Amino acid sequence: MTEFFKNINKIKFEGKESTNPLAFRHYDADARVDERASCRCLLLASSWPGSDVFGDGTFDHEWLKYQTQWNTLAFKADAAFEFFSKLDVPYYCFHDTDVAPEGASIKEYVNNFQTMVDVLEQKQEETGLKLLWGTANAFSHPRYMSGAGTNPDPKVFAYAATQIFNAMGATKRLGGENYVLWGGREGYETLLNTDLRQEREQLGRLMQMVVEHKHKIGFKGAILIEPKPQEPTKHQYDYDTATVYGFLKQFGLENEVKVNIEANHATLAGHSFHHEVATATSLGLFGSIDANRGDAQLGWDTDQFPNSVEENTLVMYEILKAGGFTTGGFNFDARVRRPSIDLEDFFHGHIGGMDVMALSLERAADMIENDVLSKNIAQRYSGWNEDLGKKILTGDLNLEQVANYAVDNNLSPVKESGRQEHLENIVNGFIYK
Amino acid sequence: MTEFFKNINKIKFEGKESTNPLAFRHYDADARVDERASCRCLLLASSWPGSDVFGDGTFDHEWLKYQTQWNTLAFKADAAFEFFSKLDVPYYCFHDTDVAPEGASIKEYVNNFQTMVDVLEQKQEETGLKLLWGTANAFSHPRYMSGAGTNPDPKVFAYAATQIFNAMGATKRLGGENYVLWGGREGYETLLNTDLRQEREQLGRLMQMVVEHKHKIGFKGAILIEPKPQEPTKHQYDYDTATVYGFLKQFGLENEVKVNIEANHATLAGHSFHHEVATATSLGLFGSIDANRGDAQLGWDTDQFPNSVEENTLVMYEILKAGGFTTGGFNFDARVRRPSIDLEDFFHGHIGGMDVMALSLERAADMIENDVLSKNIAQRYSGWNEDLGKKILTGDLNLEQVANYAVDNNLSPVKESGRQEHLENIVNGFIYK
Amino acid sequence: MTEFFKNINKIKFEGKESTNPLAFRHYDADARVDERASCRCLLLASSWPGSDVFGDGTFDHEWLKYQTQWNTLAFKADAAFEFFSKLDVPYYCFHDTDVAPEGASIKEYVNNFQTMVDVLEQKQEETGLKLLWGTANAFSHPRYMSGAGTNPDPKVFAYAATQIFNAMGATKRLGGENYVLWGGREGYETLLNTDLRQEREQLGRLMQMVVEHKHKIGFKGAILIEPKPQEPTKHQYDYDTATVYGFLKQFGLENEVKVNIEANHATLAGHSFHHEVATATSLGLFGSIDANRGDAQLGWDTDQFPNSVEENTLVMYEILKAGGFTTGGFNFDARVRRPSIDLEDFFHGHIGGMDVMALSLERAADMIENDVLSKNIAQRYSGWNEDLGKKILTGDLNLEQVANYAVDNNLSPVKESGRQEHLENIVNGFIYK
Amino acid sequence: MTEFFKNINKIKFEGKESTNPLAFRHYDADARVDERASCRCLLLASSWPGSDVFGDGTFDHEWLKYQTQWNTLAFKADAAFEFFSKLDVPYYCFHDTDVAPEGASIKEYVNNFQTMVDVLEQKQEETGLKLLWGTANAFSHPRYMSGAGTNPDPKVFAYAATQIFNAMGATKRLGGENYVLWGGREGYETLLNTDLRQEREQLGRLMQMVVEHKHKIGFKGAILIEPKPQEPTKHQYDYDTATVYGFLKQFGLENEVKVNIEANHATLAGHSFHHEVATATSLGLFGSIDANRGDAQLGWDTDQFPNSVEENTLVMYEILKAGGFTTGGFNFDARVRRPSIDLEDFFHGHIGGMDVMALSLERAADMIENDVLSKNIAQRYSGWNEDLGKKILTGDLNLEQVANYAVDNNLSPVKESGRQEHLENIVNGFIYK
Repeated sequence: MTEFFKNINKIKFEGKESTNPLAFRHYDADARVDERASCRCLLLASSWPGSDVFGDGTFDHEWLKYQTQWNTLAFKADAAFEFFSKLDVPYYCFHDTDVAPEGASIKEYVNNFQTMVDVLEQKQEETGLKLLWGTANAFSHPRYMSGAGTNPDPKVFAYAATQIFNAMGATKRLGGENYVLWGGREGYETLLNTDLRQEREQLGRLMQMVVEHKHKIGFKGAILIEPKPQEPTKHQYDYDTATVYGFLKQFGLENEVKVNIEANHATLAGHSFHHEVATATSLGLFGSIDANRGDAQLGWDTDQFPNSVEENTLVMYEILKAGGFTTGGFNFDARVRRPSIDLEDFFHGHIGGMDVMALSLERAADMIENDVLSKNIAQRYSGWNEDLGKKILTGDLNLEQVANYAVDNNLSPVKESGRQEHLENIVNGFIYK
Repeated sequence: MTEFFKNINKIKFEGKESTNPLAFRHYDADARVDERASCRCLLLASSWPGSDVFGDGTFDHEWLKYQTQWNTLAFKADAAFEFFSKLDVPYYCFHDTDVAPEGASIKEYVNNFQTMVDVLEQKQEETGLKLLWGTANAFSHPRYMSGAGTNPDPKVFAYAATQIFNAMGATKRLGGENYVLWGGREGYETLLNTDLRQEREQLGRLMQMVVEHKHKIGFKGAILIEPKPQEPTKHQYDYDTATVYGFLKQFGLENEVKVNIEANHATLAGHSFHHEVATATSLGLFGSIDANRGDAQLGWDTDQFPNSVEENTLVMYEILKAGGFTTGGFNFDARVRRPSIDLEDFFHGHIGGMDVMALSLERAADMIENDVLSKNIAQRYSGWNEDLGKKILTGDLNLEQVANYAVDNNLSPVKESGRQEHLENIVNGFIYK
Repeated sequence: MTEFFKNINKIKFEGKESTNPLAFRHYDADARVDERASCRCLLLASSWPGSDVFGDGTFDHEWLKYQTQWNTLAFKADAAFEFFSKLDVPYYCFHDTDVAPEGASIKEYVNNFQTMVDVLEQKQEETGLKLLWGTANAFSHPRYMSGAGTNPDPKVFAYAATQIFNAMGATKRLGGENYVLWGGREGYETLLNTDLRQEREQLGRLMQMVVEHKHKIGFKGAILIEPKPQEPTKHQYDYDTATVYGFLKQFGLENEVKVNIEANHATLAGHSFHHEVATATSLGLFGSIDANRGDAQLGWDTDQFPNSVEENTLVMYEILKAGGFTTGGFNFDARVRRPSIDLEDFFHGHIGGMDVMALSLERAADMIENDVLSKNIAQRYSGWNEDLGKKILTGDLNLEQVANYAVDNNLSPVKESGRQEHLENIVNGFIYK
Repeated sequence: MTEFFKNINKIKFEGKESTNPLAFRHYDADARVDERASCRCLLLASSWPGSDVFGDGTFDHEWLKYQTQWNTLAFKADAAFEFFSKLDVPYYCFHDTDVAPEGASIKEYVNNFQTMVDVLEQKQEETGLKLLWGTANAFSHPRYMSGAGTNPDPKVFAYAATQIFNAMGATKRLGGENYVLWGGREGYETLLNTDLRQEREQLGRLMQMVVEHKHKIGFKGAILIEPKPQEPTKHQYDYDTATVYGFLKQFGLENEVKVNIEANHATLAGHSFHHEVATATSLGLFGSIDANRGDAQLGWDTDQFPNSVEENTLVMYEILKAGGFTTGGFNFDARVRRPSIDLEDFFHGHIGGMDVMALSLERAADMIENDVLSKNIAQRYSGWNEDLGKKILTGDLNLEQVANYAVDNNLSPVKESGRQEHLENIVNGFIYK
């Protein structure tokens, strides 16, 4: 069997004193600081050749040669699983069309994909890797140029539904813990040719179908939507977590679907990553994470590996506070930079990202153990557990009664400091100890 | 009676050939091109003194002297109504604390405000002006530094409720057609001290109280929320129209509350003004408009007068297509630039803005009369009125059935051009004829 | 000879009443409203196949088949010149590697390109089209992944220099009026591996070489740099016009090089298009224009056709005020949207864009004829032609003397209104008459 | 003598194990890890009352009462120096109009300011504090609404020159190490009323005057400009460091003036803080730092205290690599958030910020000691020290010769990885050890 990552051995945990660039300093596959958020790091084997809008692919990696050659495609899976194993991660993810070529017709697609699912099943058995989630790519092919579920042509909708049907089936068969709905083209290019209400109805119906199908086939995992504000479209219908919430409420899906939050997409939507995660947990929508970061100064999806412990400690804290993952985990939908052409770069990206997430989890676990922030919040809002606050929230007082109460008691509330700087210092105290 | 705008007569419509800077070229108070969107232009008399974060007030206008002098405050209303009358607008709006000083206690607030409502009532009678909407300012006073409805202290909530109770009462008494809920501080400064779920519950309860009170007192107008993403807070709960929709759905208010969309806030949220209006009409939430524009290159609320016919024609088209205003209208929550210190500048800003809106309405009415865009959209989505499309939307087909249909028929959808450039040319053909 | 744009005849000027989507409403090739800015509209024949980062090409246009087939490449030039002729434009532009395939070695590149320059020369003769500018693509090929002139490897610099040498020679031979230096990769991905000072020296030396070479071969056209802030790099050295100015001053090139301003790049840099053009004319750097627009809500290069007369009237006004073009013109480096897959869409994009520029020129020419803005500015700054102002600017007064003058005369300057709203109304008066 | 910060003792260094919120964990006034960058932390005593554009001041601090009461103004200086001393910082800074009231005329301004300079001199003697820099506020007063140096009225220029003259004199007398030119209104609101070339000439002349005056009076400190892109103006002439460089080159000041870089302004200009500092060092313009941070998601000047060790370690590394500060230092032009109303908050903000800068300096000093990044860069660009590279940079080869060399040698450069991910991991290895 071909070895794709020659001269690179399994990456080991060597501790924070290690200066070996091909070792983990923080990520220790055998130790978990907190069971609830057991660091489910995992990865997609990238089929990206190092191209961008302004330039051709820069990578000469061997597995890229097998991309479109059907008879040798299994080699690509070989490369992927060799990579996963060398990184010692417990989970992987897949897109249907990364796994198998689309073929010349819908029937070919179905056959190609089924053949490759057999290969994946065998690979899972051999390696012990588990599937975090599967998904269908209904955005790259030209037929989806005007949307998949939101396409003006119901035949395109049906084509996408076919892919989703097959990808859901494969996910169930492979023991996947989640199924992700990517909406890469579910948006508009211009309002001038778009019926917003119609497209929303179509997308809502598609999601209902997916949920119904999940129950029909007895898939136990979670259904996830990944919010993204724009790119490649001018505007996506799943703009951010708050927008997705409204969408789910409209179609009665708020208890059936959760979000897969990508750091990069938060940046594009004008939010902090922390904000998106906190919004999701506060709305009961939190599902899983794509940890790839964006760039605060750039307006497109840079999909870089995470490298900020400061940012991710707050995200981890939020997740732990909400009880940790149930079915979710951390996926790296990340890419090394286009000039990072060496095989080692591929590892550096993943090692660095995994170390950042592992250390962030450690810091966050400390914060949870001595949860000063939560205590401060409980104190800050304590008035809402007293008489006036309770009666307002329960509906025992109406607007007029509250107004009368205020005037009768000549209320003159005392300002209380928000203490933001103090709390920021406390967080830094946990991170830099 | 003092004349505040000396040497400026009532502004007249003189037609587009006019070069008189103190005349309307397009806004004709007597002619309406479309009854459904009768150009309900209207205004707030600014009490802004020309200050900004980096500098003191630059204006020496006479009415500013009366701001905080209670015994002469009626003069300020005199100035406002003189201004409205000279601009020949049918409607005005008010904030409670612009109208009357807050006083040293909640009781003083109530008394001061009631006194001034008497003055407003008399002014309306004298001039024939009508009230588009009223609102309460629950964001400027230091007590609201950590929110009004979302404040950690229920006493602050009660104070805000008192203002809203009084402002709603005044709005009803003065025949107002809408009541607006401004959420200027309903957001967070830092997540570190914020309980998102708790604050959301508080705000939801406040809105329910307002709706219950509206029905109790028999106020027939609409309740409006004005979406804004941030500033002065880091994040507001009514970020944009889609976010507001999710909020209203959560609290069962989606049929009771509509949105007052501000162009400037759309810009801050990363949307086009057109997008926000189209989203609101598609969700059945469209209420009213604050027409002040932002600046695509700047990240704060510049509140400039509208001056783009290209932008506003699309907005007007969207409004007309949705059936026009019911209770809403166009408000200018706009300010002349800080160096525009002359009395005339005040008029130039309003005249220019009103002309832009009037001309945009004219262009949009032409577009509606020969609605090529709608015909194109109907054609583009026509497949959804045929068998496959209908069965998908009605739920007659489930995911598996759709997939089987696609495979059995070996579907291979034909791409159809989105024709964006053609449609953009058509719109320009309407604007530049 | 193959006809590529079948069923599409030469596009004619039919006047603004025309409803023919394949006719010009404003662009009249035979009439020029102002000779100084004779609307030098021109175009690049796109070799873009409708792909983006998230999806494959959507276009099936016949000429795309000839892209990489050397023996039939002349067909691509046939398609381009057929297109130019049908649009009735006087000029075209080229990239070296769009014109000819790169080949497998630098020698092949040189030969391929020379062969195609012969073809272009013949095409120019047959059609009468002229060359606005030529340029070399030193950013798409993987060898340029870390820059061309700014590459850490001098051999890559030498490769780029070879392309530029050849492209400059071809531009001269074909009678081109400008030579453009595109800096598509002249920036950094991360500061961690970048020597800013070294890369700046390299780029400065490259530009000096180009200018020396221009004089050596007697090329009479202008050398142009096209500012762009980022994308695909994190940061480009020619960020915006003001940055380019500092760069040119450092290397003594401010009288030798001018800027080719792209509307889209202004947007990405956080400036208005108007700002970039006004900055260039104020610094004596104005050269030429790429008229493709960006999207104020999106953070990447959307390269859309211009469609705002409001925006472009101000740009045209600025150009006319500065004396019009000398060697420059308007290029459309624009692309129809990915779903605009029909041949007609290609024409709609160009027709719409050319009409917008033509109408903008007409409006701007009116503004110049009765140049109220310039009169206002002359009046506003008139104090600088009086004694105090003159002495300050000429250096007759030093800081202390000015301070003494101010104190001795107890200066208390009178504020003058900036009249922004009035001036905005005047501009709208010219656009909407 | 009044104690303003009651119950707060001098803040001590207690080490990183300390949980005392009113102690330093990293900032140790007595220990300097690197003499070249001796952590010259310093501060402005804020006269900001906690107001913003949407709300009134929230602070009730005692010293704010003395703001405008001339006879007790010295109390404000008392408060400031008490604060500086309790924080144990070596330096402070001032604005002229924060120190003394403007008065009713230019003569009063001069007298008031001179009186207060006497007070400052005495305070410096008593406490041992030194002056990092002084500056004049020529942007807040209404007379500066259309600029100071760039005002259309030369009398306003003369007024600003008077303030600068006096502030420079005071800075010299008080032993200040730098003089800062703030350009808070040196920009435009609209191009429609602006003569860019004229305003640039005015500003250039003003800076020349300042430099001439510096030499005349024998002031040995540095003259600094603080780049800022916008706010309150639409566009400032000192947009960013690269723009300032071009400006200085135009007026022959590139060896006379340096930049004072503010983190927050880098964010507003679309750059990283690291970028601005690296650009300044690469251009020989680096002077001093305003360490207050912005918010990547917000578009205005939030002026928050620094709290990212990750960000500031890279900034410190860049400064150390360039040889450390000469006359500059770290100023906090920062404000606690509006709801941070307690006296302690004032200290928390400064303590946290100073600790972040001190820890960042420690981390950066480690990086410099084992400067892997510099070694990598030296290796990466080593080709430029070999024959071809040298000849290109020295000008020994012209364009044609380089092209001939490339073709004759059939150059085919080998791609080298940029290793970004590896380098990012190395940096994290220094920060999290």
